[in-house]
Formats: sequence, structure tokens, C-alpha cells
Amino acid sequence: MFKGLRKTLSSTHNICRSVTCREPIKRCKVLTLDSMNPHVRNIEYAVRGPIVIRAGEIERELKEGAKKDFSAVIRANIGDCHAVGQEPLTFLRQVLAVCTYSKLFDDPSIPDDAKQRAERILTSCGGKSVGAYSDSTGIPALREDIANYIEQRDGFPCDPDDVFACAGASEGIRNVMKLLMTAEDGDNRAGVMIPIPQYPLYTATIAEYNAFPISYFLNEEDKWSLTLDELRRAIREAKSHCRPRGIVIINPGNPTGQVLTRQNVEDIIKFAKEENLFILADEVYQFNVYAKGSQFHSFKKVVREMGSDYNDIEVASFMSISKGFMGECGLRGGYTEVINLDPDVKAMFKKALSAKLCPTVVGQAAMDVIANPPKPGEPSYQLFKKQKDAVLGQLAEKAQMVSEAFNSIQGITCNPLQGAMYAFPNIELPQKAIEAAKAKGMEPDAFYCFAMLEETGICVVPGSGFGQREGTYHFRTTILPPVDQVRDMLGKFETFHKTFLQRYS
Amino acid sequence: MFKGLRKTLSSTHNICRSVTCREPIKRCKVLTLDSMNPHVRNIEYAVRGPIVIRAGEIERELKEGAKKDFSAVIRANIGDCHAVGQEPLTFLRQVLAVCTYSKLFDDPSIPDDAKQRAERILTSCGGKSVGAYSDSTGIPALREDIANYIEQRDGFPCDPDDVFACAGASEGIRNVMKLLMTAEDGDNRAGVMIPIPQYPLYTATIAEYNAFPISYFLNEEDKWSLTLDELRRAIREAKSHCRPRGIVIINPGNPTGQVLTRQNVEDIIKFAKEENLFILADEVYQFNVYAKGSQFHSFKKVVREMGSDYNDIEVASFMSISKGFMGECGLRGGYTEVINLDPDVKAMFKKALSAKLCPTVVGQAAMDVIANPPKPGEPSYQLFKKQKDAVLGQLAEKAQMVSEAFNSIQGITCNPLQGAMYAFPNIELPQKAIEAAKAKGMEPDAFYCFAMLEETGICVVPGSGFGQREGTYHFRTTILPPVDQVRDMLGKFETFHKTFLQRYS
Repeated sequence: MFKGLRKTLSSTHNICRSVTCREPIKRCKVLTLDSMNPHVRNIEYAVRGPIVIRAGEIERELKEGAKKDFSAVIRANIGDCHAVGQEPLTFLRQVLAVCTYSKLFDDPSIPDDAKQRAERILTSCGGKSVGAYSDSTGIPALREDIANYIEQRDGFPCDPDDVFACAGASEGIRNVMKLLMTAEDGDNRAGVMIPIPQYPLYTATIAEYNAFPISYFLNEEDKWSLTLDELRRAIREAKSHCRPRGIVIINPGNPTGQVLTRQNVEDIIKFAKEENLFILADEVYQFNVYAKGSQFHSFKKVVREMGSDYNDIEVASFMSISKGFMGECGLRGGYTEVINLDPDVKAMFKKALSAKLCPTVVGQAAMDVIANPPKPGEPSYQLFKKQKDAVLGQLAEKAQMVSEAFNSIQGITCNPLQGAMYAFPNIELPQKAIEAAKAKGMEPDAFYCFAMLEETGICVVPGSGFGQREGTYHFRTTILPPVDQVRDMLGKFETFHKTFLQRYS
Repeated sequence: MFKGLRKTLSSTHNICRSVTCREPIKRCKVLTLDSMNPHVRNIEYAVRGPIVIRAGEIERELKEGAKKDFSAVIRANIGDCHAVGQEPLTFLRQVLAVCTYSKLFDDPSIPDDAKQRAERILTSCGGKSVGAYSDSTGIPALREDIANYIEQRDGFPCDPDDVFACAGASEGIRNVMKLLMTAEDGDNRAGVMIPIPQYPLYTATIAEYNAFPISYFLNEEDKWSLTLDELRRAIREAKSHCRPRGIVIINPGNPTGQVLTRQNVEDIIKFAKEENLFILADEVYQFNVYAKGSQFHSFKKVVREMGSDYNDIEVASFMSISKGFMGECGLRGGYTEVINLDPDVKAMFKKALSAKLCPTVVGQAAMDVIANPPKPGEPSYQLFKKQKDAVLGQLAEKAQMVSEAFNSIQGITCNPLQGAMYAFPNIELPQKAIEAAKAKGMEPDAFYCFAMLEETGICVVPGSGFGQREGTYHFRTTILPPVDQVRDMLGKFETFHKTFLQRYS
């Protein structure tokens, strides 16, 4: 088609005679919807999808003086902590300021431990500047500090050479998932198991890489738990469509908020061994565990505890500075720890990273502060602890408040938010609403969420953007705004929901 | 192969009976050199390749007390300005410091214009924090400032909606090149025209994306100029192997340092129109033009000057904060301007960007300072200008010194360094050296560069990593270290070269 198109293009007269293009005088574009990379065309990413675009339009309408029943859009669609009022950690920002502007080493208002951290980071940088490229795998000090953090977390050794800096977890996930691709088409494509509901980075990346998503469903009836039977069903049905190569687990869950038990983690590792799968453990919410009795168990730790029979399992764990108690989304920091990677593959992985030069060094510096926070006795310890505890304490309070509020509303059920920063309530939609949505060519939950946005200004993401069992409807809301605003939002939501039910009953 | 491999794996006994794996007890890794993504395996990136790994080893040996004829490795392999002693721009770093640590708004030692820039940037960020995600396309203030910069540079309007922030030019190039892929194999692959010699990001990305590199040779006999005849030859020969979709031009050239004339740019645009090619203009060295009579002409400007017959040509221009006079490689900032993109394709491009969330906001802030520098009359203007002029002045001095020095050495010729930050001299290697290299299975120029590294500590990149006409040999060296060090390096190099010639004569 492209070759034909080129041949029909007369360079003398600049007239395109291609069958698909009737424009006179002008040539065809090189890139059209038909001719562009179809895998990029197939990407979907609901967290910044059509509803968020509409939210932006509404904000502009409000600015231009439009009269609505609300004065501002509440952006509960994305885990963007600082955007909804969370304050940066003072110590972290002091370290970054000194790293970027070294005259601040002489500023007496900046505490010594912040200066020491900055000095340690800069000494690890070329020319003592965050403006020099770092090693593609990250600055040495960061990789050491992360290895120490992981050792303290798990009680097992961590080799800094297994740690790779990345510009946020998304980049780390994309880098590792790329290794798993078979570069073949159809039934020979790589298959990657993903939870449903899932964080849509996974389906987006799988689409872009032309891989096959193997959906395993989390059990909403039992707190979004993950069962071996369901993993086995999913992979059995997928084997005729792809070559299963990896399994993604998001723990704590996004958008579902469950925290896996240690037994669950162990079962998944056994399953991965049986099926020869590479484990991609999305552990970016490892600091965000709220429910009593829940605890974060890293895949790395459980693999090590399971002993020598399992010390060949390849696991990549992804971490980010965007979540937790720091919420530094814009700085783009994170790390990947990969264990048991074949040495030749590791060399190839490093080579592929080197062609991307390096992740932002300022993002690396921020990640370093989290891996190596102020210690008791250091000048910044008290303030750092106070800020950290305040953020995590309020998240725990909101996690409980939000699930209780949803469950108190007729037609809505919501599992406990054991961890992460989202609620994913189930909404019973009236048949008439479902029909009204279908008449508009919309998913029923998208129809519901658009109505919510137009009537209340609350912007959430329809469950269809994350995947859900057919015939069930959900949305994802963050729990990030301040407690009072979340309470206010829940009130507005309840009013909207009742009105919506009445309208379509 | 993978399916068979899985089936031969007994999960009860953990014995792998695959033909390719003989290890008892242990299962096969999911990822081996054979089973990993072959396109990632095919990536080559010489700028951080084997010679650079060896340079790192030598540095460790020196640290451990090894006796060598030199006391330090001179890293002339990569355009990493701060790593070799270039000082950051004070104003730029002041803006970043205020952006990261807002208490500095109260610091009287930071000038008002730096605070004003920081205020403008933060006002464009969610929650007035660089820790909030930005729009995936970049913060609005940055896109406006870049559009203004481009308008002033070219004298033609620039729509901020055509401007996209990226984490360094590499990311921008990868994002745009991805759109051009056909997602097909063999002769239906997308073809992308690249100069030879080229910056190896291009061959690396083309390999990773499974595209076809269409090499056009620059004319070393005429200052690395680019001729239409050669472009026509290259595309004619490639058409049976791929679907040509795009052409990469690096101007000023890397590694070759030539600056295209306006006529040259116009000819390339006509050629792209004839052949229906998307233009990828790598213009990261637009500030780095030294030769008398040379001037930077952006592709955007020339397209606009060529009038309405050409206002459908799709051009992406890439810019970076890593080069120029700022050299802020580690901050990862840059932009892409794309003109004449089909609106549907633009929507798809934005969607694909959104799944990557956003480029580092601190990198965006640094890019903003370069797009919107201190103006005459502002408190920081004089110092900023002085620092900028000093860096560019020294680069110009070194550009001349280096080509003169190389040309004064027997068996070496070097084109003038009209722009960018590299020399790419041609080395006549003695036949015996070529044979010695081949006996070791090495490219002759790699053999030469390894000898240079071992004997002098100077680390440069062999020409084979960039591509060169068969039977010619080159290396790329940066001209970034301070003038005295470059002079010293040239002296050491000359001694090495003479010894090398004697050894193999």
C-alpha cells in the first residue's frame, strides 16, 4: 500500500492519485491513521483518557466564567499527590536543592544531614554535577543505598549490580517487559499474565509491544484476592494464543487496593516455576499498607525464604518515588531490582539501557533520599518522621472512611482498601442507564462517570479502563485529597448517585 | 521452541530436558540469550560500548594502585560536558533550586529574575510543585516559551501545541520514530534513512524497532557534505528491502561536525517530498556553530520559506539541554517540535505519550530556562551571557585547534569542525596493524583505539561504531575538556600514533 502510494505521487505536479487519498494539489501525509504504527494506534490509557480531557475542558469553561453547580474540578483520576495538596518532604527537597545549586552548601539554614546526603550523591556523579550523565544503570551511591534498603526490608542480601535506576516505575516495567518479547506474530507472540482489574500501563505496553495479554481475574467477592485456580485457568486458555513468558502482580493492588498474604505470594512463585514464567512484581505501593493484619511481603523476600529450589526464579521488582509518602511523581525516580537474571541477558539489558543514556539524575537523587532517609539522631529525623507519619496516617484514615462511605450507599459495594491509594467500588447500574449508555455508544460505567463529572466536577476513571468482569461496573477514585475534601467529595458523590438512580429507575 | 521447552520441563523433578539446556536439577531461565527479544539483542551502542567498559576497569586498576604511563583516564568518548569540568550555568541552577525548594523564594542571595522564572514554572505545575505530574506533552509554560524561542529563531509562527517536552532528545527521537513503524517484517519493514557516519542512537533504535536502516554516506572528501545523488542512490537500492518512511538528518553533524548550508537543507526537503518521507531533524547542536560563514538553518524555517507547496511536509525537530552551552546531560530535558502532523496521528501521539505519564519536570524547568533566558536589563543577564559566551568561545577555539593538530600529524586527516562538539579524524592504518586486528577478531579502528586507551588513558570511540566507508578508519573524540587538557591530550595522542605506526610499519 505504501509503495503503491509513493508511486502514484507525481513529484512534478504534486497531485496525489492514491486510491485512499483524493486531495488534489497536496501530497498524502507520510503518517495517517491508516499508515501509522498500528501497535501505537492500539494503545489505550484510561487514566489520562477522554474523561480527563473533558475535565480539562470543564476547567477552562469555569475559568472563562461558565456557570456550573461546582466551582472546581476534583481530580481523583490519577495518583498525583502534590497536585491535590500533599506537601513535599522538606528533607528530600533540601537535598535536591543542594544537589542542583552547590552554593547552598554554605547556607546555614539547610541542615547538615541534607548537605551530607547531597555530598554523597554528588561525589557519585561525573564532575560532581547532577548535570553529568550517570551510568546507565544509575549512580553507584544510589545502587548501594537501594541495596541496603532492600536488605533491611527483607533480611536477605541484595547485590547493587542487580539494581537499576529508572525514571519512574513505568520506564522500568517497559524496559524489563521488552526483554520478554519474542518478536513474532500471532500465536507465537509473547504472552504476559496481568490481573483484571489492572493498572492500564500494562495493557498499553502489551499493545505497543504486540504481545498477548493473559487476563487473570481477581476475586471481588473475596477482597480482590488472587487464586491459583484462576491463574491456571487463564494460562491454560491462553496457551493456544501465545507463548506465556511473564506474570505481572501488582501488590498492593492498583486499582483494587488488596495486599497479598505471604501464602499468596508463595503460591504465585510456585505457579511461576511450574509454568516457567518471569515474575514482574509491581511493588510501588510497598509503603502504602493500612489494614490491620496486612503486611507487605516482597516477592524477592519470599523467593529467598523458599530456599534453594527457588533460587533460579527470575523476579523483577519495581519501585517508584511517585507513591508511598513522598508522592514525587514529577521528579521521575524509581528503581528495578532483578534477581536471577542470566548473566548474558543482564549484559544485553545493560546495553539496551545504555542506548537510552541515563535516567534523570535528580530523580535518582530523590530515590536515594527514600532509600537512605534521615536516621534517629540526625538533625532532620524528627521532621522527616513527622511528615511521613502524617501522610501515611491520613491515607489510612481516608482508606477506611472511603470504603465505609461507599458501602453505606445503596447499590454500591466496596472492598476494604488494605493498601495503595485508590478505591474501586462496584456500582449496580439501572438497566435504563445501561441502555442510555449503549444508545450513545458508551460503556455504561463511562456514561456514569461522565455524568458525575458534568454534574459534580468529580473526575474519576471508569472501571472499563482497568478491566472488570462482564456485566459489573466500577470506577477508580484516588483517596489523595485532604481528609475534609475527600469527605466533601463523598457527600457530593452520594447526592449525584441518588439523582442518577432516580433518573434511570 | 519456547512451547517445546516448557513441555520438556518437569515441574515435579525440576529437571530441564530441553535440547538446548543440559543443566540438571535447575530449570531453564525464562530469559536466555537465545530466548530473549532478538531485537534488543541486536542493539549496538558504541558510545557506551566495550571500550568504555574497559576504560572503567582501567580507572579501577589505577585506584587500586596499578602502575601505568598515565594517572587518569581522559573520557573523550561521550559528550558529557560537566563530567569533564564544564561549570553549570548559575542562573539555570538557581531556578532549579528555587523550583525544588520553595523556601528559597525568601533567600536574598538568589536574584529576582531567577525567582520570577521559578514562579512562572511552578504556577504551570499541579499544586505548584515540580513533584506533580505534568501534562504528558509538558507544562504549558514550557511549551509557550519554546514556541516563542522557535519563533524568534526562525521568524515564523510556532504553535505551542506542536511542541512536546521530552526527557532528552533520545526519548523524543524514539517516540517519533516509533510512529513510523509498519509493524511488519522483512521487506515490508519501515525504512529510515540515516547518515553514515551517524550517532548510534539511530542504528540502536532501528534495531530495537525491527526497522531497516537506509544508509546514505556523507562525503568525507568535501567536508562531510550531503549530496542529493547519494540520497537518491541510497533510497533506490533500499526500496526492494523495506518501505522507506523517514529520513534522519543530524545538523550540525554528530560525529562529523559539518553544518548544512541553506541550499542543502532545501534540497533535502525537496527530496523528502519527492519520496514521501517524514523528516527527523536532529538539531541538538543548534547553538554549536563555530566556523566562519557557517550558520544554523532549521528545517522548520526552510520549509516555511519554501512556501505553500511545502507546507504539508512532516518535520520533527529535536532539541536537548545536554549540549549547546548548558551541557546539562544528567537533567534529561529536551523538546520535539512536530509540524504538519495529521491531527488524528497527533491525537495518537499524545495518547502514546500519556501512557508514559510525563518527562521529568525538573528537566522541563531546565529546558525552560534555555528557551526563556535572562533578558538585557535583568539582574542575571550579564553573568548568564558571560558564562554562555565563555563555553561557546572555548569550544570554537578547541574546534580549530583540534582539526589543525590532527591534520599536522602524518597519516591523519580531519575535516574542519564547523559545529557540534566532536572531531572525527581519518586514520591511515598500516596493513600490519589491520592484520593484527583481524587476527584478534577486532575492527582495525577498535584495535587502534584500544591500544590508545591502554597506552595513554585516552578513551575515544572507534569509527566503526558510527559507520564509515569500507576500508576507511576513524575515531570520534569530543572537544569538551578544558583547552589545556585538550592540548595535552593531543600531544599524548601524537606520541601514541607515531609509536603505533612504527610498531606496525
